Amino acid sequence: MTHAKAYAATSATSGFAASTIDRREPGAHDVEIAIDFCGLCHSDVHTIRSEWGPAKYPLVPGHEIVGTVSRVGYDVVGFAVGDPVGVGCMVDSCRECDSCLEGFEQYCENGNIGTYGAVDKRNGGTITQGGYASSIVVDENYVLKVPAGLDPAAVAPLLCAGVTTYSPLRYLDVQDGDRVGVIGLGGLGHMAVKIAKALGATVTVFTTSPAKSDAARELGADHVVISSDPAQMAAAKGSLNAILDTVAAVHDLNPYLRTLDRDGALIQLGLPSEKMPAVDPGLLIRRRLAYGGSLIGGIAETQEMLDFCAEHGIVCDIELVAADQLDEAYDRMVAGDVKYRFVLDTSTL
Amino acid sequence: MTHAKAYAATSATSGFAASTIDRREPGAHDVEIAIDFCGLCHSDVHTIRSEWGPAKYPLVPGHEIVGTVSRVGYDVVGFAVGDPVGVGCMVDSCRECDSCLEGFEQYCENGNIGTYGAVDKRNGGTITQGGYASSIVVDENYVLKVPAGLDPAAVAPLLCAGVTTYSPLRYLDVQDGDRVGVIGLGGLGHMAVKIAKALGATVTVFTTSPAKSDAARELGADHVVISSDPAQMAAAKGSLNAILDTVAAVHDLNPYLRTLDRDGALIQLGLPSEKMPAVDPGLLIRRRLAYGGSLIGGIAETQEMLDFCAEHGIVCDIELVAADQLDEAYDRMVAGDVKYRFVLDTSTL
Repeated sequence: MTHAKAYAATSATSGFAASTIDRREPGAHDVEIAIDFCGLCHSDVHTIRSEWGPAKYPLVPGHEIVGTVSRVGYDVVGFAVGDPVGVGCMVDSCRECDSCLEGFEQYCENGNIGTYGAVDKRNGGTITQGGYASSIVVDENYVLKVPAGLDPAAVAPLLCAGVTTYSPLRYLDVQDGDRVGVIGLGGLGHMAVKIAKALGATVTVFTTSPAKSDAARELGADHVVISSDPAQMAAAKGSLNAILDTVAAVHDLNPYLRTLDRDGALIQLGLPSEKMPAVDPGLLIRRRLAYGGSLIGGIAETQEMLDFCAEHGIVCDIELVAADQLDEAYDRMVAGDVKYRFVLDTSTL
Repeated sequence: MTHAKAYAATSATSGFAASTIDRREPGAHDVEIAIDFCGLCHSDVHTIRSEWGPAKYPLVPGHEIVGTVSRVGYDVVGFAVGDPVGVGCMVDSCRECDSCLEGFEQYCENGNIGTYGAVDKRNGGTITQGGYASSIVVDENYVLKVPAGLDPAAVAPLLCAGVTTYSPLRYLDVQDGDRVGVIGLGGLGHMAVKIAKALGATVTVFTTSPAKSDAARELGADHVVISSDPAQMAAAKGSLNAILDTVAAVHDLNPYLRTLDRDGALIQLGLPSEKMPAVDPGLLIRRRLAYGGSLIGGIAETQEMLDFCAEHGIVCDIELVAADQLDEAYDRMVAGDVKYRFVLDTSTL
């Protein structure tokens, strides 16, 4: 057992405080990682504040982890001390079900093991603790290689926000010339714009905020539609092949479905805690549309995404925060006051 | 101008009465058809009773038409007098939009011209009148060839119920060994079972009525799930690749979505007149599911379906009715008292 510095919450309202957590000694297949950076994801906020059900406190969140290999287990072959590596939303899964065997560990039929707050079945049933910490120990099958040439701090959020948008764009086989819409311009949305552009798509950003138009265009968006303006929404009718919906607040999807062309798909990525208004089946029937969902990405796909981002020079737009700014950063995330992702500098723990 | 015998409704509550309607002289590209049989579709009931908005009376419904070519226009090359032919839900479309050019006339971006109750743009803006009639005149591009060897009366409903289920099964690329669910065992549902079986799928029928279990198995269903029994629904969790939902009444889709395996799709075919309960986006996200819709089929696809049915010996299970039984048949359709489709024998007009 080793100890790691960490920032943990002890209740839904406690905020964060410095803490020390245990990390296991690396087993034969484990990689020990000295964490350099960890992104702050909106799902960290939901979890820590028990908005998705009661969290298991004390809890250290964080699943956008970038660091350096500090030790490897006896049987590890893919990683060596000093390698730049990453860990995303999962640290294990059953490895036996069809989803795991097909490389879709995120859909593990026995439940993937989340990077924090999950019961770690293969490791004594302890509760996993995430990346707001100085180190972590993870089975090598769930560790990613961070490509050279990218700012490691700005790579961290790719492990969640990046792959969450990359995966559905690839699943929908978005290609050169396709017309992709992105609802919301936050952590996920701004990654969706960059990745869709890199795939060759023409990108339309839907935002309620006219003030975000310039920012959307700077990120590469070809068109911006103010979604609260019925005339602009009507003008966009039938113009898109696919829409990624990154908004995790309750909203009516029907006006967006009308902007899809025949055979188009709207993929929801964010999960609101309240019930969404019903989708009109008539819209689906009359244009053969699909309304779907997508959950992060598999391990192999996450590696593919990192390599794709390296090839295209894509990272997240981030603001570095120190450990003692975590509470303030959470409040700013809830207020939407971040362009576009906070990343914790773990040297400040 | 010629005259045709027909049965028309003059209001939402009038019921049917014998009538005479005008049919145009066949133009250069037209085929005149002596109608032998016409299926009674549930959408005929909705339309005639003004449940989908006010109908244009007097109105002759019917879009599952089988008959024999009686005259052809000067430029018609694909049909000759005496040919057995069919007409489905459309008699025209713009022929210029992407959907038309790609063979998806049902999704015509300028609106396909329905076989009845539609403004016939190319023919003086008259209102189209359907197949509860002794003859019809249709542009050859919207006329289907009825394959030899099938009972023509039982072929008639293939033109709507058949292609409405065939099209999404093909769009989803259902193949040998796939697991397909069918919600509802009416006109559409029983065709879905037959066609999915012929495509090689294992078929599960969802029905609220235990009394329909035997009938479902006789049609070829491998499994029957009583959808009102939570234990049976729970046992079916994750068991299906695709579901065709043929029920046009309000119902909660979420229990059915839980029976889909990863990457599964539920395709809604029937359009309830009331609002449906909302689909839970969490279900879509956690298994990368899709909730979609599908509208009849294109002309080329309808021909492909007819040829497929001939190859596999598939027709609709029907009950022939005479013209003076139409009102009674409508009441029985609303009560679900038909196995599985009524077909009007036009010799009784």
